[in-house]
Amino acid sequence: MQIAIVVYDRFTALDAVGPYEILSRLPGAETVFVAERTGPVRTDTGALAVTADQALDEVRGPDLLVVPGGPGTVDQLKNPALLDWLRAADATSTWTTSVCSGSLLLAAAGLLRDRRATSHWAALDLLKEFGAAPTGDRVVTDGKYVTAAGVSAGIDMALTLTGRIAGDEHAQAVQLLTEYDPQPPYDAGSPHKAPAHLVEELRTGGRFSLT
Amino acid sequence: MQIAIVVYDRFTALDAVGPYEILSRLPGAETVFVAERTGPVRTDTGALAVTADQALDEVRGPDLLVVPGGPGTVDQLKNPALLDWLRAADATSTWTTSVCSGSLLLAAAGLLRDRRATSHWAALDLLKEFGAAPTGDRVVTDGKYVTAAGVSAGIDMALTLTGRIAGDEHAQAVQLLTEYDPQPPYDAGSPHKAPAHLVEELRTGGRFSLT
Repeated sequence: MQIAIVVYDRFTALDAVGPYEILSRLPGAETVFVAERTGPVRTDTGALAVTADQALDEVRGPDLLVVPGGPGTVDQLKNPALLDWLRAADATSTWTTSVCSGSLLLAAAGLLRDRRATSHWAALDLLKEFGAAPTGDRVVTDGKYVTAAGVSAGIDMALTLTGRIAGDEHAQAVQLLTEYDPQPPYDAGSPHKAPAHLVEELRTGGRFSLT
Repeated sequence: MQIAIVVYDRFTALDAVGPYEILSRLPGAETVFVAERTGPVRTDTGALAVTADQALDEVRGPDLLVVPGGPGTVDQLKNPALLDWLRAADATSTWTTSVCSGSLLLAAAGLLRDRRATSHWAALDLLKEFGAAPTGDRVVTDGKYVTAAGVSAGIDMALTLTGRIAGDEHAQAVQLLTEYDPQPPYDAGSPHKAPAHLVEELRTGGRFSLT
């Protein structure tokens, strides 16, 4: 089973590395980081680069496709090379997945039309404009399309998918291996739980730039 | 504030990228991935490489030090270049942190003697042999030393530390930004919760190799 994780300039690292850490433990998995060109690809903060070992045109027919999000999504929405590749890869994939605003790329490629899907909470309205049917859920499965909410939600998506592909026991073993027994020190991880003024600050870019 | 994240051959990606994603959002943070030599450093699966932008001897006096773990830890325990650098960096750091078996490296450098600390659940016994006082907690703070349990626990460690450094509100904003509202589909993330036979399989390397 070939797993292709697509990266591009200014993607969000954890969007890709969360699912990578879980899915690469699937029995028989061969995981590859792929980008328009091979070589280092910088994440959104500029402080981290990951290596794309293969170029898009070298990866044909991955079984499982992972599309992370991040501020760089906006530029990729207008990149026909990436969108064409997503359509081609999706045509033969067994699973097509995304994390965070990665679902906008799937939607822009026309792959989520009228499908239930999710995205970063701040991108759900835009996801609807691209023709998908957004839900506020953390992990959404519609046929072979599995989309995750923002950044860290890719871990939950990947564990869910691992259970579907390799069974509950294997998924539990991976959860134990990665000691995924989360104990966040705060309970502010969703717009329904965080203080309202923080939600507003993030929406308007007042504290961090989301793009 | 300079944050140095140390990487080495066959580290575990999420050990480093979890804290990176959270801590690099600290106000005024300058984050750098550092290794013995600059260039790509392969993670434990072989499928992912991250770029070390600076060599150990280029990074002197980071304010915050992050040491991830992984199967490659075993080799680094005998690497005087790394252990010497850890001692030197720790001498002037404000915070010295680790994730997973990264605490073994801190302990091997003599930095955790008789200190409360944690590690991957399968490495706690070894941590004790290196002179620390292991606890089974997910995040342990003893003075300026903040250690996290296995792999995913680095996210909780980093959020806890963000609260200490920049205040609760900033930590909550980062939690919201990264939509860290975990909803694991299973409850098998600690040896106290997972089926006993899986704990045994992982301890004995029957399912995954931990080294």
